[in-house]
Order: sequence, then C-alpha cells, then structure tokens
Amino acid sequence: MIFSSKLIEDAVQEFSKLPGIGRRTALRMVLQLLRMEENEVDEFTGALSRMRHHVKFCKTCHNVSDTDVCVICVNPGRNRNQICVVENIRDVIAIESTQQYSGLYHVLGGILSPLDGIGPEHLNIATLHDRVKTNATEELIMALSPNIEGDTTVYYIARQMQDLKVQITTIARGIAFGGELEYADEMTLARSIAKRLPVENYVAIHNKS
Amino acid sequence: MIFSSKLIEDAVQEFSKLPGIGRRTALRMVLQLLRMEENEVDEFTGALSRMRHHVKFCKTCHNVSDTDVCVICVNPGRNRNQICVVENIRDVIAIESTQQYSGLYHVLGGILSPLDGIGPEHLNIATLHDRVKTNATEELIMALSPNIEGDTTVYYIARQMQDLKVQITTIARGIAFGGELEYADEMTLARSIAKRLPVENYVAIHNKS
Repeated sequence: MIFSSKLIEDAVQEFSKLPGIGRRTALRMVLQLLRMEENEVDEFTGALSRMRHHVKFCKTCHNVSDTDVCVICVNPGRNRNQICVVENIRDVIAIESTQQYSGLYHVLGGILSPLDGIGPEHLNIATLHDRVKTNATEELIMALSPNIEGDTTVYYIARQMQDLKVQITTIARGIAFGGELEYADEMTLARSIAKRLPVENYVAIHNKS
Repeated sequence: MIFSSKLIEDAVQEFSKLPGIGRRTALRMVLQLLRMEENEVDEFTGALSRMRHHVKFCKTCHNVSDTDVCVICVNPGRNRNQICVVENIRDVIAIESTQQYSGLYHVLGGILSPLDGIGPEHLNIATLHDRVKTNATEELIMALSPNIEGDTTVYYIARQMQDLKVQITTIARGIAFGGELEYADEMTLARSIAKRLPVENYVAIHNKS
C-alpha cells in the first residue's frame, strides 16, 4: 500500500501489529478513527493507555485486577472452599459470564507443554499449593483445555497436591449443547459414552439450563 | 461478558466501537496490548492520537495529507493535465498502490445518492470545476464505483463540465483478470461484450501487465 500521509501510514502500521489485523483491516480501523470526533479518539487511546499502565495482576489468584487483590478474591460472598484452576484470564471472563460459579479462581498463566518449553516452573503452581495449604481449600476444579497438554497439567497438579486433603475435579466433557453427534470428534464421543449419565440426571441438568 | 477489571472492561468497550469488532475480538486485541511492552503500547496509542489530531485534508484535491497541500499535488513529476476523480481516500491508496497512474486526484468525499440524501452540494464538485477551469485540465478520469450511483455521478459531473474543454473518460469495466466468466454478473458480462476489444489490442494490454 502506498500512502500520501505519513500520519495515516504510521497508524495503519501500528494497527497491523495486532493479531489477525491485516493492512486492509488496519486501514479500515484508521479511517473509522478519522471519522470519529477528536475527543472520542482521545477516549479510545486513553482507555488503552490507562489499561496497559495501570492494570495489575491479583497477588492471590493472578487474575487481572485494578487493585493488588482482585474483586473476586476480596468478595465475601464467594465460596472460599472452591478454587477453579484456569489457563488464562480469558477463561475467568468466560466462566464469570455464565454466572453459575461462585467460588474463587487460580490463573496458571499457561499450560504444561514440553514441546514449547513450558514447564511447571513457568506456571503459577507453587502459589496454588500455598493457597490450598494455607486456606485448607476443599475442592480444586480443573477447567483446562480438553487436550493432551490440559490432561498432563491436571495430572501434574493432582500429584503436587497429594500431601493436601483437597478434592480434585475436572469440568465435564462431552457433546456440547446443541452440538451434532456426527460432527463430534472421536475422542469427545468416546469419552461422552464412557462418562454417560443416568437419564434422571440428564433431565435435571437439561431443565436447569 | 463479566470482567473483574474496570480498566480491561473500558478498553474492550472502546475497541468494540470500531467497525466489525465484536466484544470477543475486542478482548483479544486488549489482551494482546496487555502482552506488549508499555512503550510499544505508547507508540500504538501515540500514532493513533497524532493521526487524528494532525492529519489534514489537501486544499486542492481533498485527499488526506500531513501538509496543507498533499505530496501528490505538489509533486512536479506528476502529470498535471490529468485528474482522476475518486469517491474516497481508500480509492486513492488503491490506485497509488498499482504504481501505474502518474496524474493528479480529486476526492469527491462520497457519491450522489438521493436515497441517502447525498446531493451534489455534499460532494467536492464545485472545487473540481474550479480546478479544471483554472488549470485547463485536459482529462478527467472518472474512477467511481460501477453501480447506478457511480454512473449517475459520472453523468452529473460530465454535465457540470460542459462549459470547459476537458475530455471525460471512465476506467474500463469488464471481467476481472483471473475472473471466471460464469461467475460474472449479467451487467458486467453484457458490458464487456458490448465494449469488446480487437484481439491485437487485447494482446498488447495482456503482455503489458
């Protein structure tokens, strides 16, 4: 692309650095900003700048937070006996958005992946052990990706917690609600047959949702 | 979506204002900015802010510019006898990027569209007439969208220029290079048959590209 304005070119260049944004899309974004009022663009850049400079990571659960300890960890209404272990903050947002979970979280900051050189020392596992031990947590709900790395991480963490009296569970896996049986992968289908539920149970869950 | 950080929420909210950016995509962008170094994010927001506050519109051709008159209009190497009339600045970038056109431009800032309430008074047509008259421009190349509004605009401008000795041409329309005949719309196919070229000419154009 050839631009007649360096200001436009620089802005397009910066937008192209974001994931999934090619130069055409970047140009569309820049031209949209150009159509917006100056104070609206100031609000836009201001919000991004404030976010990057002031957002913190919760000292307890490693979730993003505006304060040293996040609003979930300080909320007295949350069930302190349960900790849901997730890979990243996107997963916290996804689970919070269901409004069905009232316990605490622990963000690992990744998943064990020897091929990518990610070992236990790169993840927030030691702080998880400390938390469970200090607070005598009753249940760790492992909500990790349903793949080999996720399963390996669940297995590793379960072993690390052996000295503690904490129950370890994982989120249910199976055919998604509204999913087509024939399009499910073999692993999911095999698991959902192996872990089948009695029909009374199924009806109860089904009516709840 | 439920966020545990107002800073993240505000940033996602701002990103969602851009065209084609839903909340999930906005979150992905924000988390990418969070992974970037603080000074990189400052460069990002700085470039967007500078662009919005300092970009100008060329007094001659209405294209975006860093100066009062754009680099194309002041370039002595450009052919001042030709003016290519386009709808918006995206079209200037597209034509410049072909590196095949060496004349000047005139950005209309839209296209005649009675249904959307866009009349001649909303477009940069009066300044085009002044330019052609003052500079005794030889050719106006109409590079507008190939649809009813584009054709109407071409016709309107041609009438406005009747008192001037300027030749008015439009860009060629037909089956796109590499396009499949069977997928072309009827209008394009009909036109490309009506405006067929002798084979010698076709070979010459074909070899040139």
